[in-house]
Amino acid sequence: MRLLEKTIDSIGALDPGAMAAARTRQDTLTKPAGSLGRLEELSIQLAGIQGKARPVIEKKAMITMAADHGVVDEKVGNWPRDVTAQMVENFLRGGAGINVLARQIGARIVFVDMGVASDLKPRPQLIVKKVAYGTKNMCLGPAMTIAQARRALETGIDVVSGEIDKGLDIVGTGDMGIGNTTASSAIFAALSGKRPEEVTGRGTGLSDEQLAHKVDVIRRALAVNTPDPSNPLEVLAKVGGFEIGGLAGVMLGAAARRVPVVIDGFISGAAALVAAALSPRVRDYLIAAHVSAEAGHASMLKYIGLKPVLSLDMRLGEGTGAALGIFIAEAAVRTLNEMATFAEAGVSEGENNP
Amino acid sequence: MRLLEKTIDSIGALDPGAMAAARTRQDTLTKPAGSLGRLEELSIQLAGIQGKARPVIEKKAMITMAADHGVVDEKVGNWPRDVTAQMVENFLRGGAGINVLARQIGARIVFVDMGVASDLKPRPQLIVKKVAYGTKNMCLGPAMTIAQARRALETGIDVVSGEIDKGLDIVGTGDMGIGNTTASSAIFAALSGKRPEEVTGRGTGLSDEQLAHKVDVIRRALAVNTPDPSNPLEVLAKVGGFEIGGLAGVMLGAAARRVPVVIDGFISGAAALVAAALSPRVRDYLIAAHVSAEAGHASMLKYIGLKPVLSLDMRLGEGTGAALGIFIAEAAVRTLNEMATFAEAGVSEGENNP
Repeated sequence: MRLLEKTIDSIGALDPGAMAAARTRQDTLTKPAGSLGRLEELSIQLAGIQGKARPVIEKKAMITMAADHGVVDEKVGNWPRDVTAQMVENFLRGGAGINVLARQIGARIVFVDMGVASDLKPRPQLIVKKVAYGTKNMCLGPAMTIAQARRALETGIDVVSGEIDKGLDIVGTGDMGIGNTTASSAIFAALSGKRPEEVTGRGTGLSDEQLAHKVDVIRRALAVNTPDPSNPLEVLAKVGGFEIGGLAGVMLGAAARRVPVVIDGFISGAAALVAAALSPRVRDYLIAAHVSAEAGHASMLKYIGLKPVLSLDMRLGEGTGAALGIFIAEAAVRTLNEMATFAEAGVSEGENNP
Repeated sequence: MRLLEKTIDSIGALDPGAMAAARTRQDTLTKPAGSLGRLEELSIQLAGIQGKARPVIEKKAMITMAADHGVVDEKVGNWPRDVTAQMVENFLRGGAGINVLARQIGARIVFVDMGVASDLKPRPQLIVKKVAYGTKNMCLGPAMTIAQARRALETGIDVVSGEIDKGLDIVGTGDMGIGNTTASSAIFAALSGKRPEEVTGRGTGLSDEQLAHKVDVIRRALAVNTPDPSNPLEVLAKVGGFEIGGLAGVMLGAAARRVPVVIDGFISGAAALVAAALSPRVRDYLIAAHVSAEAGHASMLKYIGLKPVLSLDMRLGEGTGAALGIFIAEAAVRTLNEMATFAEAGVSEGENNP
């Protein structure tokens, strides 16, 4: 069996015993039952994912994948293609948003060149796994071949497996790629059957006119490629991106090894759509960090079946939302593990609690 | 001039120069303009509060105030009054939710006995400033005297001033007091003119029948006391609580010394109502950490004019929401201070950015 199929095959269900134990413990902690809200829900999900009644979040990593997009030739955004590579250099010098927030939460970051259009030399924090020098323009034909789509997915699986081998309790996903909101909207439209205008946002800041053009570009890409919605590998190949495929692979690979994945915004959401189309079980392993300001993200999360933890009007990408989400997941696990029970603290319990 | 009036008098406007400088810097950082959403807004507010173009959040404290409420005699909740003192002991042993979350964000905690109904002995982490052994039952007359209300407020000012003297860049507020959602709803109704049923929630978990009784208790307290909505000190005295007055004092005292205050949920919100009624300028110094699951909290924040940062269905109190809010405020300041500018990073800027 090939790596992708083997990985999908090994994604199990959440552990019901660990979840029940975590739920029971929550109800004995010194607080009104349910009063930690989403933190309680997250702690129970994390117990089910890790298969531990007392889940642990100590070793944290962000995986931020970068690639270029041929569709930039259609002038879908305001930023030149070179910015993808320039921002990777900014990441490696520690000056980007994701560097700051990963430092704050105590997470290591792994940057992966999945298909940047220029040569980047490997460095300790940069894994170069270039599938190609950017995708092709999806308005003229498939963005990549089926073999490249598979390679992107399997690279993601490999990268996260390597990180898990080094020790990893939770992983966050992030992206960098000029043009990648266009590919993400196209994936969402292709898989969901929604119309391009329903799923397309302003990316880094488009005018009304530019937005209409972007919608038209996505419409043309779908018309030229007619991706089969029941074939996620084909959708990824025809209208996707290398970093999107890589991130979908990270999600599948992490789920297969029971590591929770905190997904970032719109681009990670598109990757989650691909991953969940390949294996519906992967959804249980995902935590949607936030709903971003990008139009279509809220409906994308709803379509996948994920309830975002935060809503901070962010739309930067890179994994910045995911880093904040990891902090909240850690708060969930710490309260579960470190709070005293009523019995330990000698506190009287309320009537009807829980 | 007395301490309360002197404090109110010394609350200044936000620093427009620092805010403009922070805004300008945000627009030069390596990201699409505005893409950090609420983090950018918060960074600019924090610059204005601290009067620094590059605000700093290093020294953090939570101030959690506890007191008892005579209205508990009316059976407004499911928890016995003794739980207030028991939970203070739990705080001092480090086993409560606020202990866990304050540890996670690296904040010290100061617990203050503002009026617990039993004797608590002072300890390094516990300041005993008891105004009385709990308030009186507000259904039978004023919860406290005007002099006690003033003392609660001035104690809050003193406590936060002491903490600022030790070094403090941001403070979070928290509460513990069986019965204090009832007092908070009564304050909100009294100051806003809203009907009790609009502003009353289920607290730690009431049934429909219990909720109707709680609404009735608040209605009776307002009818018996007829607090003058234009006199916040009178409102606090007639239907408030010692910890609520103390927290309002913390807000005023922090604002007077340009220290940002991250407010917790419904009880801190009631304190903010009192503080803002005493001095409308205090609002600019407040950050609403979250909207809680308590019915009426969203409308309370809207009434004060604050937009919550988080929405996690929490309703624990103690300052747990505020601790998470401090983390987000810190993320706002760190991204402002630590991200590279386009010029520093050699990244091309987008057209029309900002």
